[in-house]
Amino acid sequence: MKKIEVIQNVLEANDTIASRNRQLLDKHKVFVINIMSAPGAGKTSLILETLARLKGRLNVAVIEGDVASTVDAEKVQSKAKAVVQINTGKMPESCSLMAVMIESALKDIPLNDIDLILIENVGNLICPAEFALGEHKRVVISSLPEGDDKPIKYPLIFVDADAVIINKMDLLPHVDFDIAAFRRSVTGLNPKVEFFEVSCKTGEGIDRWCSWMLERVETNAAKR
Amino acid sequence: MKKIEVIQNVLEANDTIASRNRQLLDKHKVFVINIMSAPGAGKTSLILETLARLKGRLNVAVIEGDVASTVDAEKVQSKAKAVVQINTGKMPESCSLMAVMIESALKDIPLNDIDLILIENVGNLICPAEFALGEHKRVVISSLPEGDDKPIKYPLIFVDADAVIINKMDLLPHVDFDIAAFRRSVTGLNPKVEFFEVSCKTGEGIDRWCSWMLERVETNAAKR
Repeated sequence: MKKIEVIQNVLEANDTIASRNRQLLDKHKVFVINIMSAPGAGKTSLILETLARLKGRLNVAVIEGDVASTVDAEKVQSKAKAVVQINTGKMPESCSLMAVMIESALKDIPLNDIDLILIENVGNLICPAEFALGEHKRVVISSLPEGDDKPIKYPLIFVDADAVIINKMDLLPHVDFDIAAFRRSVTGLNPKVEFFEVSCKTGEGIDRWCSWMLERVETNAAKR
Repeated sequence: MKKIEVIQNVLEANDTIASRNRQLLDKHKVFVINIMSAPGAGKTSLILETLARLKGRLNVAVIEGDVASTVDAEKVQSKAKAVVQINTGKMPESCSLMAVMIESALKDIPLNDIDLILIENVGNLICPAEFALGEHKRVVISSLPEGDDKPIKYPLIFVDADAVIINKMDLLPHVDFDIAAFRRSVTGLNPKVEFFEVSCKTGEGIDRWCSWMLERVETNAAKR
């Protein structure tokens, strides 16, 4: 039982820091999206496609979470206004970004010059569901080759998502994935979620995703 | 620092129980393989293909780890001699099977009648790397659509693997995956690892994988 209590304390402490991050972000009118998925579902590809389309319209920073490497940050480096790499290292921190890591990363981002921060979480459908970071929107990417049963097997991450992006639509002819069944499973957990069907390879659906995001960034900035 | 110590204690306690599991398995001459991968890489499909080929040759039990559902256990149910479902539930237990869960599952398996237990771990490339279960061999499945950079991004799970199965070879014409680069990254971490290139959809490569496993099950049984 002691173990459970310690984890409970960790999650509570995380929530406190996440609220503090959110206050700081709101003060600077910076909108933040936390992008989560299984390994290889296309987080980095989506970020690269998004940066290409938002160029000249928004100033975007990227926080790259990764267990060990800097390969994703290197890909994004020249495309974003600022990029901060977080390496989560060994357990227990390894399996998700946590609010305290974002707090530290925000110190390296010129918040007054930034409209939007895209956070690429660690590739994992389990731990990131439980750690708030201070983000405004939570996005889950599911890619077709993973199969349509992921919401049944990893429900928690879908319950709190604002948007679910179905990626690798270009592979639809080659894999068994029932899009209607997948969407039904997700809406069963989370009726208000927004869906996007995209291919980061062909560009299909990315414009609609960027419009959705732009609208929210602008609404958020106008409100304050 | 306290948090780290608690996790350290959890890992040490896990190792102790894993050793106890191993003793019990060896006493009953049961060989155990721990199958790990990202969500949707094909653990259940590989188990189903393996069960079909080993039918009449070995008595196989399956332990199915899953955060929340029983869908995989239902698929395997009629194909194996015994199936035990473990639902890992909420953090911290959610992100990997642990030795104590296997200890409990082994009580529901008629060990005297079983030659081989296939453990399907939770879909995750991070946590399962750190929890020994008492298994004889550790197998990681990487599927082509995930991309060839997974050993760079999630090194720990590859470091201790006995075999790496490259699955979804049927998708090779449709995805960007450099098999030679992937194999180089893995052998850089783990020079002794054995590779299998398979497709659970077409059956390609599954016979070789089953032969490798059969040989080890038989050697293990003969030694004792």
